[in-house]
Formats: sequence, C-alpha cells, structure tokens
Amino acid sequence: MMIFSELLQKRRAIRDFENKEVPLAIIQDILQDATLAPSASNNQPCRFAVVSCRKTIKALSDESKANLLRDHAEKKIHLNPGYVNLLQDENFNVFYNAPCVIYIVGPKSVGSLDVDAALAASYIMLGAAARGLGTCWVALGANIRDPRLRAELGIPDTCRIVAPIILGHPKAIPAASERHAPDILRVITEAR
Amino acid sequence: MMIFSELLQKRRAIRDFENKEVPLAIIQDILQDATLAPSASNNQPCRFAVVSCRKTIKALSDESKANLLRDHAEKKIHLNPGYVNLLQDENFNVFYNAPCVIYIVGPKSVGSLDVDAALAASYIMLGAAARGLGTCWVALGANIRDPRLRAELGIPDTCRIVAPIILGHPKAIPAASERHAPDILRVITEAR
Repeated sequence: MMIFSELLQKRRAIRDFENKEVPLAIIQDILQDATLAPSASNNQPCRFAVVSCRKTIKALSDESKANLLRDHAEKKIHLNPGYVNLLQDENFNVFYNAPCVIYIVGPKSVGSLDVDAALAASYIMLGAAARGLGTCWVALGANIRDPRLRAELGIPDTCRIVAPIILGHPKAIPAASERHAPDILRVITEAR
Repeated sequence: MMIFSELLQKRRAIRDFENKEVPLAIIQDILQDATLAPSASNNQPCRFAVVSCRKTIKALSDESKANLLRDHAEKKIHLNPGYVNLLQDENFNVFYNAPCVIYIVGPKSVGSLDVDAALAASYIMLGAAARGLGTCWVALGANIRDPRLRAELGIPDTCRIVAPIILGHPKAIPAASERHAPDILRVITEAR
C-alpha cells in the first residue's frame, strides 16, 4: 500500500526534462502495462504513436499551435488571452523540451474513446512515474490535421487523437499543485 | 516498481462481492487519493456521491435500466439484444451485489469532464485494489434522471454523471481478461 501512495505523490505534471532519451524498451514496457487499463466492454480501442525525434516533435507543436490559433481566430474555439500570447510565441514548444511524445489515438466510431484513452493515459502516467520518468498530458498538442504529419504518425483517417503525453527524465519533481479535499456531495448509508 | 506492477495485475473488474460493508473511512481515503489524479488545467471538476444503502442501490439500478430500455425503444440509443434481455430481467441489478456505488459527477459546462472523471476513476479503481477491494465501472448504471433520486444523490442540475463505480470486498480475483499487445502505430526516432 505504502508504495502505491508514494507513487501517487510522485506522479506530477512534468514540463522540464533532462536532455536524455528514453530507451524504446522502457516505452514499450510502459505501453505494455497500459494494455491492463480497463476499457468499456474490454474493447481496448487505444493505439499509440511514439515520437522520439525532436524535429518531428517541433513540427507537431507548430502544426497544433497554428490550428489552435486559426480555430480561435475563426471563433470555433475560445482561448484565453494568456494562451493566445503563448501560442503566438515562435519559440514556445507546446511539448516543452520533452524528448518523447506518445499520442494516444483510437477509432472515431468508439463512443467511449475519450474515457478509454484517459484510462490508458492514467496507466501510462503512473507507469512512467513508477520508473522514475515524468509525463504531462499536453492537450495543446492534439490538433494535428496535416495529412502528411498524420500519415507520418501512422494515424488512419478513421482514428482521432485523444491524448498527447510527453515523457522524459524529469529535471526535478515539483511540489504537488494544490488540491482541494474530495468534494463529496452525499453519503447515503443503510437505514438501521 | 514491483509493487505497482503487481497492483496493475491485481486490479480486475470485480462483479461478485462478499456480503460485507466497506467502512466509510476507507472510502474517504480512496477519494482523498483520487484528488491527486491529474485534471485539465488542474481544474479538479469531479464530485462524488457515495451510496452504501442496498435499497437505494436497487432503486438506482431500476431507474437506470428503465431509462436505457426507454431510450432503446425510442431508438435514441442502440443496445445489443443480449443487453436488452438482461435489462428486462427484473432480478438483474446492474450493480451486481455490490455493497457500495460511488458516482463520479461534474459540471456539464466542463469540456474535459469525461476525461477528468476517467482519470479520477482510474485512481479510485487502483486505490481500491491497493486496499484489497474490488471495483468495476458500470456504465449501465449512469442513466439517473428521476429528480428525486438525483436530489437524494445531491447532484445539482448543473452536473452530470460520468462514472458509477461499484466497490466492495471481492469474492475472488478473476483471471485477467484477455489483452492484445499494445497497438503501436509508429515509432519515430531521431534521424542519425
């Protein structure tokens, strides 16, 4: 029990990484663990694209930033001004300096895909922390539409991206961000 | 590391429970752990309703079954024939014989609610397994519309149910359901 509690404390959102690659064998182990995540009707819809190439990561960041800014300009989405400034900064990489990005994707036809992918993401983030690695789910990096980039990631037209997870050796484990107590609306116990 | 791997192996979908209550203090500990789950922009939108009353659990099961069958009859959803038969069976309780159901709910206005709730659900399911307890996410139990039942659960009109999680002492830990190898679409490494 202690160990799992420690792991929960250790898993933080990491956005600053050492300049050090994550061996593919470790990434494969983490993805193997992630297959144990539950999914609706044990449907296991998630697929993964692993990007350990800084040039490709930069191209993916630029593509996602451009699409977010375009959607914002066309009023399809609303971004707060802080995000707009950040996304307009040429030097800002949405994936920070991570040496690896794992895209969790799955069939558009699966109604529970968001939830199934989030469960797998949780296993990936905890599995990485258990191995001394750091992760962060970077939603700003999900907007990849360029057909060449999608083909490079191996994502079929029938699939959509749910979660880009950055992965690497953390420079430091930051303190936990503040959490409020569990918001328990009601406890209904047996009438006695 | 070993311990976390063991935990992943131990967390199974449990649908058969001992006739034994789960102490509220343990449920509170599990929900406390769940506050450590990541959420989009650390927004922490999840709220919880804890039902440890068999009569209420039965009423929630009946309500969800009736709504699912009505939606199916009105062609708003499609259920496969096996599920229709099961839901029509008066003796079938969607929550099986679980002594406790935790509803994870959150504001309808939060775009990332499904994903945030799934991450919290994952922490609850692993946290329960770490304490020797069993869980299962029972999507069939989520369709609660009766205003009296929603009020009993303390769910405001602004909120919706994402995940009903059953919780109890497992009669047995079943073998892992089959998993396919991780479906890795592509690995992109640094050009050297």
